[in-house]
Amino acid sequence: MSRYWSSVARSLTPYVPGEQPKLANLIKLNTNENPYPPSPSVQAALHAVVNDDLRLYPDPASDALRDAIADLHGVTRDEVFVGNGSDEVLAHAFHALLKHAQPILFPDVTYSFYPVYCGLYDIAFQTLPLDAQFRLCVDDYVRPNGGIVFPNPNAPTGIGLPLNDIERLLLANTDSVVVIDEAYVDFAAQSAVALVSRYPQLLVVRTLSKSYSLAGLRVGYAIGHADLIAGLHRIKDSFNSYPLGRLAQAGALAAIRDTAYLQATCARIIDTRKQLVAELQQLGFEVLPSEANFVFARHEQDDGGQLSSMLRERNIIVRHFRQPERIAPFIRITIGTQSQCQALVEALASLLEISP
Amino acid sequence: MSRYWSSVARSLTPYVPGEQPKLANLIKLNTNENPYPPSPSVQAALHAVVNDDLRLYPDPASDALRDAIADLHGVTRDEVFVGNGSDEVLAHAFHALLKHAQPILFPDVTYSFYPVYCGLYDIAFQTLPLDAQFRLCVDDYVRPNGGIVFPNPNAPTGIGLPLNDIERLLLANTDSVVVIDEAYVDFAAQSAVALVSRYPQLLVVRTLSKSYSLAGLRVGYAIGHADLIAGLHRIKDSFNSYPLGRLAQAGALAAIRDTAYLQATCARIIDTRKQLVAELQQLGFEVLPSEANFVFARHEQDDGGQLSSMLRERNIIVRHFRQPERIAPFIRITIGTQSQCQALVEALASLLEISP
Repeated sequence: MSRYWSSVARSLTPYVPGEQPKLANLIKLNTNENPYPPSPSVQAALHAVVNDDLRLYPDPASDALRDAIADLHGVTRDEVFVGNGSDEVLAHAFHALLKHAQPILFPDVTYSFYPVYCGLYDIAFQTLPLDAQFRLCVDDYVRPNGGIVFPNPNAPTGIGLPLNDIERLLLANTDSVVVIDEAYVDFAAQSAVALVSRYPQLLVVRTLSKSYSLAGLRVGYAIGHADLIAGLHRIKDSFNSYPLGRLAQAGALAAIRDTAYLQATCARIIDTRKQLVAELQQLGFEVLPSEANFVFARHEQDDGGQLSSMLRERNIIVRHFRQPERIAPFIRITIGTQSQCQALVEALASLLEISP
Repeated sequence: MSRYWSSVARSLTPYVPGEQPKLANLIKLNTNENPYPPSPSVQAALHAVVNDDLRLYPDPASDALRDAIADLHGVTRDEVFVGNGSDEVLAHAFHALLKHAQPILFPDVTYSFYPVYCGLYDIAFQTLPLDAQFRLCVDDYVRPNGGIVFPNPNAPTGIGLPLNDIERLLLANTDSVVVIDEAYVDFAAQSAVALVSRYPQLLVVRTLSKSYSLAGLRVGYAIGHADLIAGLHRIKDSFNSYPLGRLAQAGALAAIRDTAYLQATCARIIDTRKQLVAELQQLGFEVLPSEANFVFARHEQDDGGQLSSMLRERNIIVRHFRQPERIAPFIRITIGTQSQCQALVEALASLLEISP
């Protein structure tokens, strides 16, 4: 604590991302990265823009990229916002659209960055418990609020919310913004993007870090009514005029255009997920029904903290959350390649036999 | 204006960056980009990291890059903060270190993003006039304040402040943070980095967008006491865990290490600046003494707005600021290549003869 810090710097409890270890030869199933490389067209596009023009500022509005995203979703450029990863897009959404007199609402078990943004921007919030099956009940959210935010599918549970539930919420909640964080939607869940044209209070946030295999490039975006997007641009243009460099814009553009590659990669991950779930269940795990590129699982014999420590000793990293308490028994396992998941299953089988 | 916007989104007056035109064949002297390409080692480093590892998150702490910056300046890693361009670094500095009960202080003629950050984070500020020669008088800043920020050399004037003036200010102002924005320092001015070890309230901000020819990559950094840097990290880790992607980290690392290339490029620009100043003076311009990669000049015959419009018609873009009023007569001209500056001088000579 320094006397030079502002009160907000003093009071924050920063987000703690999953470990990014510098060791090689680890089976890394802890931060929901894609086990497959990005589209070959991304690498070609990146090589093409490594040139003398790096001396020049990028397009501050990322128009070409926003046009490609608009084409993908059948919307217009002014309904698209892009940022330096979806975490930046979410941060701006909290600041521009979720900071009001009433507290905002989100689930008790969800992406743990949401309360951090509330601390950063001094936004009151209220968490609403998921039910005993870790499902989100939209009726709970029909109450006065300054905004609503949740991931679909939810993290770290992987459980998706059907589109008719989301539409029911939007019909009942018209006075504040509903942010749906679709970081994992390409792995099976139903996207709410199709609802944007009918609900001016809906903002859908996406990332290229998971399904597009571009966690290392840092690009995320939001789709919503042009008025919401204009609000995000007001914050962005008061924070950093050029959030996406030339390389990020070119690489993301190539990724967005290669829909065939995206679909093929996601299909492989969905196949591997099915197989992994079956094998974990055979080992006695309870696995929540996942529509994401990870599964959330617990075993009656060991708690999540023990399991993740024992896996780490065998060079396999998964993610464990101590808080809130009711998810402490679980581990979150990213869907890796077939062989990575096989190695995980073998390690778990061996651990569960040897543990007391 | 949308009813869904927060009060801060409603009240902001966003920053307006210099135009990034999509037309080719313009002589672009409006946003202080370097006319020379980045070091060849940057391009090699970038090609090397365009690979399958883009699927993985980058190092959230950018340790290798921070180590290289620490080596360059003779400090330690925990005295270095990096961000997505120096605008992001400045934004976090305003939020973490300059938001206090007292208003912060900066010059009336300076980087026009500073009041925008104050609006974004609800920070009171007071501007202090430069003197009649557009010089900053540090004695004016010795008064109660929540922080002090100014560029050295100043923008858009290009005028540098001697190091002994900065040290005099630091001796007199120990209760709040002094941020020196050294975006242009490599083009002649004296850096305050050497003072960091003695003044725990000093934060020096740098960018790779100007002297390192990497405006398109988006990397900036700050040097200061480890306590100040820790405050910046608290904000950064509550906003975006991964501000710099794999490409930005690798490219910046290569740039920072090639000090010979940096010095050679800056020397060329300084030579061209001397020549341009002499030629502008021959045309009757008053040119403020510049230590940056731009000059700020006025001509009694035409005001800045007229001159910049007439140059634009001849495919030369310079920057003109309408506010504050006393700089409206000036145009800000980025130092381009010798031939670009020659083309500018010829265009100005012809314009001044033909204007009424």
